[in-house]
Amino acid sequence: MTNPNPHMLSGFRILDLTRAIAGPTCTRMFAEMGAEVIKVEAAPDGDMTRGYSKFGSERSLHMIQQSLNKKSLCLNLRDADGMAILRKLVPLCDVVVENFRPGIMARMGLDYAALRELREDIILCSISALGQTGPLAESPGYDYIAQAYAGITSMIGDPDSTPSIPAAAIGDVSTGVTAAFAIAAALLDRYKTGLGQHLDVAILDCYYHCHEVNVHQYSGSNGEISHKRNGSHMGYICPAGVFRASGGDVVIMAFAQHWADLCAAMGRPELVDEAGWKTDAERMTHTEEVIITIEDWLQNFADVDSAIACLEAHGVPCAPVLSVAQTISHPHLVERGTVRTVNDRVAGEFQMPGHPIHSNRYPANNDYDAPLLGEHNNALLSDLLGMSDDELSALKKAGVLHEKNV
Amino acid sequence: MTNPNPHMLSGFRILDLTRAIAGPTCTRMFAEMGAEVIKVEAAPDGDMTRGYSKFGSERSLHMIQQSLNKKSLCLNLRDADGMAILRKLVPLCDVVVENFRPGIMARMGLDYAALRELREDIILCSISALGQTGPLAESPGYDYIAQAYAGITSMIGDPDSTPSIPAAAIGDVSTGVTAAFAIAAALLDRYKTGLGQHLDVAILDCYYHCHEVNVHQYSGSNGEISHKRNGSHMGYICPAGVFRASGGDVVIMAFAQHWADLCAAMGRPELVDEAGWKTDAERMTHTEEVIITIEDWLQNFADVDSAIACLEAHGVPCAPVLSVAQTISHPHLVERGTVRTVNDRVAGEFQMPGHPIHSNRYPANNDYDAPLLGEHNNALLSDLLGMSDDELSALKKAGVLHEKNV
Repeated sequence: MTNPNPHMLSGFRILDLTRAIAGPTCTRMFAEMGAEVIKVEAAPDGDMTRGYSKFGSERSLHMIQQSLNKKSLCLNLRDADGMAILRKLVPLCDVVVENFRPGIMARMGLDYAALRELREDIILCSISALGQTGPLAESPGYDYIAQAYAGITSMIGDPDSTPSIPAAAIGDVSTGVTAAFAIAAALLDRYKTGLGQHLDVAILDCYYHCHEVNVHQYSGSNGEISHKRNGSHMGYICPAGVFRASGGDVVIMAFAQHWADLCAAMGRPELVDEAGWKTDAERMTHTEEVIITIEDWLQNFADVDSAIACLEAHGVPCAPVLSVAQTISHPHLVERGTVRTVNDRVAGEFQMPGHPIHSNRYPANNDYDAPLLGEHNNALLSDLLGMSDDELSALKKAGVLHEKNV
Repeated sequence: MTNPNPHMLSGFRILDLTRAIAGPTCTRMFAEMGAEVIKVEAAPDGDMTRGYSKFGSERSLHMIQQSLNKKSLCLNLRDADGMAILRKLVPLCDVVVENFRPGIMARMGLDYAALRELREDIILCSISALGQTGPLAESPGYDYIAQAYAGITSMIGDPDSTPSIPAAAIGDVSTGVTAAFAIAAALLDRYKTGLGQHLDVAILDCYYHCHEVNVHQYSGSNGEISHKRNGSHMGYICPAGVFRASGGDVVIMAFAQHWADLCAAMGRPELVDEAGWKTDAERMTHTEEVIITIEDWLQNFADVDSAIACLEAHGVPCAPVLSVAQTISHPHLVERGTVRTVNDRVAGEFQMPGHPIHSNRYPANNDYDAPLLGEHNNALLSDLLGMSDDELSALKKAGVLHEKNV
């Protein structure tokens, strides 16, 4: 059970009670950075993600994406012996991470007070949609529910339609990363103080934290400035947003000093100093005309790539709006490892997002395995709890331990 | 210069060369959690955010939001003496954080190799839009440019229109938090190995990391499954999305087992078993009808709150789509500190997002100050570099040091 991949977080052991996306993202950050993560999966099916994203085998790509370098311990958590094993593991772990609905850990006899009795300096990280406290704490939560309460949903989409929701788990994932940071900070704290703590990280709070100006400008102006969603364009500088080009869309950020560069690109140098077009504030008063001017010009190009080439040649900050399909083979994303190729022992080769942290000392590791369900039952329980082969067989026979090649 | 707010990260000192949003978010995470963050601001104006969000005073709420508990050192970085001071501070700092365009640190003589000569175990964290490596590394970058390259923009908005962009700095902020995690992990690593490292964290990678299924499903299905943006609704379960109600919008997540709860709420129990309405897959084939049924029913309520009350009473996961104005006084967000009130010594009282990490050992601190420009010039340079009052006066007179009450 030695860790073959020394990395920044090697030497820490995490008891991982999470499921779905936000929690598993947090523990995967640790697993991919060398920590020993014991993913506890409820028998008989394990993490719900094992049910999704199957292509040509019973192996879930969703599970693989979330479980790289984790160890799977598949336990019957409705059985007293299963719960007893869980409790015996706590003293051997630095951190417990969970994302049950608030209140469930207490019902399982595993709230912070109970965990502290098992290990006094334990760090417990609780991840949830709306938080462990406050009147909504026990409401059922998903990413989009937290997003709506955070005032983020109201800021996405056309102003005259119902808001749009991003088709990616932005809140889940960024909350998982925030929780990973909280745990790392708590581990640093433990070096100094010898103490653990209970961390409470919510998707709601992480989304709300993304309002870089909306909250303070509304508050500071006593409600006079009230930013609204503004479709494809920013609401207070112009031009800045998504523009329709031939064969696709492009992002152009030609506000402030970049406006002159765009005018040069368009061959319209006279617009730099034209009344009504000089400043962002002036251009904001007739954004529609500005957008039409740019989109008409973009039609002169055969495709998005040639429009981008022209904009880049003039120093205009811009980007093609890539589809997911296009990202997978884009030279920059491939070279950086933003997209990575995993070669799973069952599901074979496929692409998924890379780890978002690059370090000169720890190059990306593309050999991480995701565990089969219950793959590490025996190794973990014999190594950590000293269980004998006979005990392990008996637990398996009794259905307390479970394994399956998926 | 003792730190009056002991917290998880007390004892670490960060040299903060960042500006705008992503970088300052990273260092603010450290400052709010007790680290000593020396924010280096270029004379004479300091961080560009000092120019925005002013209401009734010359004090920028934007700067306050990003600078709580930081110390401001305002230096002329075009002056050899200014740069010499910067270099003398490096050996006294655990971490240097910067978010210049890749290549600028090298031109300033402060790339990782140069910093290592000043302090061998230094941790350098470089934050950028598109990363330090790859063909696009030196392109100018903003949140929305990275978002477009990450395939995220293509997943937001109505399928038949140009994509929408969220009016909040989701990429900047979540990248700042990811960088904070990277630094905390590197500090943990330094305890074990005694070594520093160079970290490279990009908005592009952090956005791409949010594709929980889009990339692996496209890849695993050889392009057969190609999720597209789908407006206000999820693209593969139904009903799940934003629905227009009386006086506002609501998020309803009534997929899978929650469908029966919604049917009960609507007083339409027959729909649970009706052919074509039973499963998400069936409902996906006529989503428009499902949406109209729900939105028609929602019109029966006088307002959003009464619709939410009914949905909650039936256990349907749901949320009101709050405007930013509504979030500021929402009891849950206020009680949790998701929104917090800051009382600035110059700008007075206003609201901004709270710190997203809650700990039982370190309750939220609402007394943090943001620095005046150059406020800590003298204290920092006398304490850390042993400069005399005469030296400090001379540097100020020469314009190497600068301060202003903003």
